Amino acid sequence: MAKSPEQEHTVKTFGWAARDSSGVLSPFKFSRRATGDKDVTFRVLYCGICHSDLHMIKNEWGSSTYPVVPGHEIVGVVTEVGSKVQNFKVGDKVGVGCMVGSCNSCDSCANDLENYCPKMVLTYGAKYYDGTTTYGGYSDLMVADEHFVVRIPENLPLDAGAPLLCAGITVYSPLRYYGLDKPGMQVGVVGLGGLGHVAVKFAKAMGVKVTVISTSSNKKEEALKHLGADSFLVSKDQDQMQAAQGTLDGIIDTVSAKHPLLPLIGLLKTHGKLVMVGAPEKPLELPVFPLLMGRKIVGGSTIGGMKETQEMIDFAAKHNITADIEVISMDYVNTAMERLVKADVRYRFVIDIGNTLNSSN
Amino acid sequence: MAKSPEQEHTVKTFGWAARDSSGVLSPFKFSRRATGDKDVTFRVLYCGICHSDLHMIKNEWGSSTYPVVPGHEIVGVVTEVGSKVQNFKVGDKVGVGCMVGSCNSCDSCANDLENYCPKMVLTYGAKYYDGTTTYGGYSDLMVADEHFVVRIPENLPLDAGAPLLCAGITVYSPLRYYGLDKPGMQVGVVGLGGLGHVAVKFAKAMGVKVTVISTSSNKKEEALKHLGADSFLVSKDQDQMQAAQGTLDGIIDTVSAKHPLLPLIGLLKTHGKLVMVGAPEKPLELPVFPLLMGRKIVGGSTIGGMKETQEMIDFAAKHNITADIEVISMDYVNTAMERLVKADVRYRFVIDIGNTLNSSN
Repeated sequence: MAKSPEQEHTVKTFGWAARDSSGVLSPFKFSRRATGDKDVTFRVLYCGICHSDLHMIKNEWGSSTYPVVPGHEIVGVVTEVGSKVQNFKVGDKVGVGCMVGSCNSCDSCANDLENYCPKMVLTYGAKYYDGTTTYGGYSDLMVADEHFVVRIPENLPLDAGAPLLCAGITVYSPLRYYGLDKPGMQVGVVGLGGLGHVAVKFAKAMGVKVTVISTSSNKKEEALKHLGADSFLVSKDQDQMQAAQGTLDGIIDTVSAKHPLLPLIGLLKTHGKLVMVGAPEKPLELPVFPLLMGRKIVGGSTIGGMKETQEMIDFAAKHNITADIEVISMDYVNTAMERLVKADVRYRFVIDIGNTLNSSN
Repeated sequence: MAKSPEQEHTVKTFGWAARDSSGVLSPFKFSRRATGDKDVTFRVLYCGICHSDLHMIKNEWGSSTYPVVPGHEIVGVVTEVGSKVQNFKVGDKVGVGCMVGSCNSCDSCANDLENYCPKMVLTYGAKYYDGTTTYGGYSDLMVADEHFVVRIPENLPLDAGAPLLCAGITVYSPLRYYGLDKPGMQVGVVGLGGLGHVAVKFAKAMGVKVTVISTSSNKKEEALKHLGADSFLVSKDQDQMQAAQGTLDGIIDTVSAKHPLLPLIGLLKTHGKLVMVGAPEKPLELPVFPLLMGRKIVGGSTIGGMKETQEMIDFAAKHNITADIEVISMDYVNTAMERLVKADVRYRFVIDIGNTLNSSN
């Protein structure tokens, strides 16, 4: 008979979980494995709320198995390391992002692209190699193989740094891979949410000229004055869009709702690149002729490998890049999820796990 | 008052033109400019029939102005050169492809990518810089600026070499640009028509392993035995397609009918590239999730620059690559067009202009 979540492992752990597709989170006792030879165990201090947490707790992608303990923007302080751990020691500030395992034998793993490993194990809601379920960072304790642990530089705030582990790498990696990181380039960012606002910051730090593209002008002042974008386009304003035709080297499209690609492809210069990092559930309409005539591409990207994630975190620390966050207490999480549905957050909720999660809740 | 086609220029020319959207071609007298300082004039010997000729004579893209003299796979022998022409002399074998002019001042022109110049002038059905209409290769005589003239190597047959000027460069250029030209790579070719069959030949000559992907098994033996493809996939055979998931580095998709992209994206390895060179009129459905999860791209490409076109022709001559053709007489052209509608040709019609076009028709 399968063991209960509380008995699977030896280390008692406490978190919040969704029990069904209502998505309502509530206190949940489970367990984590004892620190293995190559494991790093850390006390969780902060965990960001990613939009995919919302999808997962409500089973909107159809892959959830309950209980779900969400959270893959996890930071904290090391409490124990295994005997073979080389890069971390007790007291280190560390983080874990979207994945906690990969096969270590495929081409992707050999090329520091564990995120594209077919056997990659997600930080929560997945089966780990020992057959147990993975649980995320809405919990007091985390254990992970050191390969999947990131060092958080001293000067990077833990709370505002946490979202970089998913939102940050998701936009940093395509800026690099698709070559949209050259000083003086013109890059568009579609959608100014959790992903978009850090995309603007990373691109600016790379020396890129950034145009924010949004459905309304609501966020114009915010984008230009606060985030430092160079220009702002309202995608529903035909005249603005027409005037900007053929001006961008690339676009990072963070929108996961259905939306037209033709106007975005039109903004690209010849050989320009439209990179999708949001994941609309239904197919989008792809006009082929404009791709041909400008040798343009539409590409995708998802998070990044561990080496690049560390590089991203170090780059963020060097350039003082953090997410704009609203820190919340654990028992506010269900309200936060409701607000997230309405995009009522600038720009990321981060749960203060260290101070507000306690098993007497 | 605008001059008639016969009076616009000084050099009497004879060809066949479509007069309206019936697309029926018939004898047509017009004129070409006298050989300018930088011009090469040549007697047309062969002209390939491209599928876009069919679209243009029937105004299926809505851009045709009649009369239309089609043809942009034109080869012949030089009869006169201008005083400033540097690279050609009387008697040389030459060709002209899809374009006869570009602005010579934009980034694309500066980078030998005249094909992406916003002011590029198509070989027929376009306005040339002097305000006159361009007429294509279904005619006895051709005049073009030497920059847009390609040298045909001695060992390349003129008739079977002609289609390379459009079909050849259309598939050669993306194989190079998208890096699908490395020996040992696995590349798919979708659609085995005028473009597809030369794509197989070029890819094979580059040392690439080629998989032909077709809707039926009709062309399997042809693809494997005659064209030298390494494998063949029937796109409607779910088992075959499933077994081939994740095996291709890239795909050259030559199909211009509406077709599903998801199965093709599924055939790609992580970081694989689906390159569209056919131009479906309506948008295709683009599933975004598979692009993200494999960092795959969908790109486009159209013909190639003049430098690359010469490189392609020289490569073809070196590797004995020609199109498989059916040579026809000028007065068979309307029947050929009807057969083209039904894809009843293996793989390209070429009109024997030199021997069968005469003004007593």
